[in-house]
Amino acid sequence: MESDVTDTALLYGPVVDDIPRVADRLRGLSNGHHALLGDTLAYVFETEGKRIRPALVMLSGKLGSYDVGRLVTLAASLEVVHTATLVHDDTIDQALTRRGLRTINAVWNGKVAILVGDFLFAQSAHLAAQLDSVRIMSLLSETVMAMSSGELRQYASSEARVIDEADYFQRIAGKTASLFAMCCQGAAIVSGQPEHQIEALRTYGTNLGLAFQIADDVLDFAGDETTLGKPAGSDLSQGTITLPAILLAQRLSPDSPVVADLHSGRNAHRVVDAVRVSGVLDDALQRALEYAVAARSALSVFPDSDARDALVHLADHVVNRRR
Amino acid sequence: MESDVTDTALLYGPVVDDIPRVADRLRGLSNGHHALLGDTLAYVFETEGKRIRPALVMLSGKLGSYDVGRLVTLAASLEVVHTATLVHDDTIDQALTRRGLRTINAVWNGKVAILVGDFLFAQSAHLAAQLDSVRIMSLLSETVMAMSSGELRQYASSEARVIDEADYFQRIAGKTASLFAMCCQGAAIVSGQPEHQIEALRTYGTNLGLAFQIADDVLDFAGDETTLGKPAGSDLSQGTITLPAILLAQRLSPDSPVVADLHSGRNAHRVVDAVRVSGVLDDALQRALEYAVAARSALSVFPDSDARDALVHLADHVVNRRR
Repeated sequence: MESDVTDTALLYGPVVDDIPRVADRLRGLSNGHHALLGDTLAYVFETEGKRIRPALVMLSGKLGSYDVGRLVTLAASLEVVHTATLVHDDTIDQALTRRGLRTINAVWNGKVAILVGDFLFAQSAHLAAQLDSVRIMSLLSETVMAMSSGELRQYASSEARVIDEADYFQRIAGKTASLFAMCCQGAAIVSGQPEHQIEALRTYGTNLGLAFQIADDVLDFAGDETTLGKPAGSDLSQGTITLPAILLAQRLSPDSPVVADLHSGRNAHRVVDAVRVSGVLDDALQRALEYAVAARSALSVFPDSDARDALVHLADHVVNRRR
Repeated sequence: MESDVTDTALLYGPVVDDIPRVADRLRGLSNGHHALLGDTLAYVFETEGKRIRPALVMLSGKLGSYDVGRLVTLAASLEVVHTATLVHDDTIDQALTRRGLRTINAVWNGKVAILVGDFLFAQSAHLAAQLDSVRIMSLLSETVMAMSSGELRQYASSEARVIDEADYFQRIAGKTASLFAMCCQGAAIVSGQPEHQIEALRTYGTNLGLAFQIADDVLDFAGDETTLGKPAGSDLSQGTITLPAILLAQRLSPDSPVVADLHSGRNAHRVVDAVRVSGVLDDALQRALEYAVAARSALSVFPDSDARDALVHLADHVVNRRR
């Protein structure tokens, strides 16, 4: 889990100077509203995340006819979708902080957070509509449907304590990979690429998203509180059974105490320790790596370029990152 | 407050046979999902409301080139938006019933309700995208932004106990009138009407929505629990100060105990009684009537027709209805 590329300048290559324009666009969205709405929007757009989704949009767009204004609009729209889901997820989880910063439901409350999230979903559609493409609008709506369906499936699986690999992949395909796919496919459409490239970038995005989420789920077990900004094993403590625990259950005898813990939801600490020492984290990362390889190989239809290189690098990075 | 038209066949005139197709379309949306999503969608679309929004879409469409399939798609999209806001509003208010039926957050819980609402917002966009019109998509996103902004403003005003007519009208323009306007304007666009008719129907919808919401806010004071499905004065008990209370405060001396109650949020029953006996309900209905007149007069650009007559009737009905 050593990261060989941590510098965003290296990672985002030829688009690194354009990515800040997405954040500028987002900050501009908080103007012109009544006080509560303006304040909450300014708050959510003040913090910058990893900006991996904007990078995906801009890099994918570089593989076609690069129109920075239109690509920034798409990237902003999709980052707003991502933000909306974070605001609602934190409300659902009653999370008080995210990456060390207080959530909307902590600073204001759950009522405000629900409505701000709703506004953001509509705002993302409003930005996307500026691209004047019904195809983009239709894909965006399908993406948000897939994301909320995936989140609902995750909730149902947590409640029923489902320990099943296929269920896990359906969940993460919806909640994470669909937006990654939309970033890449959408940018391909906006930059006027031919259908086979649009399809290739969608495949890249889907596989990258799966690799990213598996790596995230591994980090939740492997990381420490300082880098994660939350205690290790917090997914499990909240009832979400992810790939490492599923792989562990596959290895153990059905009557082992750890499997019983997984089914009952008790002794999360014991399960976390068992996951950490069992070697399943390497197995899970191996799965992530396979998706990263699939993502990279989807790029074979493109000739060599700095943007293509950066996307290849990104596929390695999402598996190897430490946070 | 006597209603002279209660029969929906009379009220919805020439489109009465097409309106059930909207409900059919909605019920079809619950198919093809995982169990929790399918069950919740089936539950929300099982109950039929007043269907005033679908009626507005179909009647407005009758004033142009009536394409029942496309108009049903638009009506379904906008009824899904309405449903999404109800699901989230009930979650925010922690309401256990709506018109006598248990809410999603009561049958399942708030987490599920947030995610189902999110899915519905995306579903509405997905339906609208089938109309292949970026203009419709853009208007839809602006409508949802206006609605959630209006709800947030209502929340802020409740918290600060704002007793102000301008604030009230900004709130109801956002949370109610914007969707009525979208129904009428959207149908005008979908049915290929010229710009001056599109504008006229938007004006009609906005004014009808304002009249409808004022009448609703009057009913909240004037109605009884049997017809309302909730106790009289429940808005006020929840902290929402609507037009009747604002008009009452305007009449009373600033140091009257009832005005003090309004500012403090205490003794809601005393305020409700004062509103009921003061005659401000008639004043408020007079305002509703003025908006209904403005709505009707926007229809003057249309030649006589059954659909136009039905829209005229509807403007009277929303003020005179008893529930």
